[in-house]
Amino acid sequence: MRYPESLLKLARALSRLPGIGPKTAQKLSLHLAFHREEAEELERALTGLKALGVCRICGNLAEGELCPICQDETRDRSVIAVVETVSDLFALERSGEFHGLYHVLGGALNPLEGVGPRELNLESLWARLSGVEEVVLATSMTVEGEATALFLAEELKRRGIRASRLAYGLPVGGSLEYVDEVTLGRALEGRKPL
Amino acid sequence: MRYPESLLKLARALSRLPGIGPKTAQKLSLHLAFHREEAEELERALTGLKALGVCRICGNLAEGELCPICQDETRDRSVIAVVETVSDLFALERSGEFHGLYHVLGGALNPLEGVGPRELNLESLWARLSGVEEVVLATSMTVEGEATALFLAEELKRRGIRASRLAYGLPVGGSLEYVDEVTLGRALEGRKPL
Repeated sequence: MRYPESLLKLARALSRLPGIGPKTAQKLSLHLAFHREEAEELERALTGLKALGVCRICGNLAEGELCPICQDETRDRSVIAVVETVSDLFALERSGEFHGLYHVLGGALNPLEGVGPRELNLESLWARLSGVEEVVLATSMTVEGEATALFLAEELKRRGIRASRLAYGLPVGGSLEYVDEVTLGRALEGRKPL
Repeated sequence: MRYPESLLKLARALSRLPGIGPKTAQKLSLHLAFHREEAEELERALTGLKALGVCRICGNLAEGELCPICQDETRDRSVIAVVETVSDLFALERSGEFHGLYHVLGGALNPLEGVGPRELNLESLWARLSGVEEVVLATSMTVEGEATALFLAEELKRRGIRASRLAYGLPVGGSLEYVDEVTLGRALEGRKPL
């Protein structure tokens, strides 16, 4: 049997999304075919996405020229947290512990994949350093994230700006038994007096 | 931080889909925000869904008045398989073993949830029985599916139409060790001479 063309197209579009395989895509497309109000809500939301751009200053998602954080007068403008992606920015925001501004690099240094400093959103970082006292290097604790943090620390030192790095350690609620030895070693190294 | 409104709306629309929780919805909405060509493909596919209706004869999905199966002159018009949902129809089609027409009930009898014969797509089934020699009751092997099959068998008998039911047995590749005892009992009951 030929499946209806519109259903096939929908399943194909859904299966391009991360974590959605062809089986799930087919199931979802059938669901949407029988729940038209959900399909229409999703369609409207996707149309609405066109209003979403990138903040001129920090690279966060923004509905206008500037993102809500860069617009927020109550944020501490002397501290910038450098993150790899907008997802990382959202994660830090959820912690509720950071009150400065952000800068989204759009990735991490990865010479093997051809990502050098020029591929990252760096020029705009150097351009916004006046009045900034500290840059928190909040890239991931991966090889690429570490390399990027080291590179940025050097560059910031040359420019006379204080750089700091997120702490290594045990995750809250984490049990010593199950944590990997490298993390445990770093947690010991970074121990604090009580 | 306020998330951008359009991103929130997209995440909300996605989280209404079956199997997509709020975390996945958020991840997918961010992905779509950074992969606009995928968002546009999905949007177009959802718009295209509006062309998809229901077959006037059998209740299958159809792009015009009739679905591809009801339109297909090569299908055996003397046999109709009654299924609960369009997904079940697709499953039977994938087996490649059925060459007749279908009838989609839109559910199964479920008195506790208020689904009686009148809630199912039955009037149109009775209306299309002329020239039909056999109705294959291909509802699920659940309590509701069984009850529906029994009910339909009675009704078809009254109308002088032969009814048959899908066979119980072991799934292909299934090991005796892991199959439940009821299924095994039915497989024994339905054993065939070699």
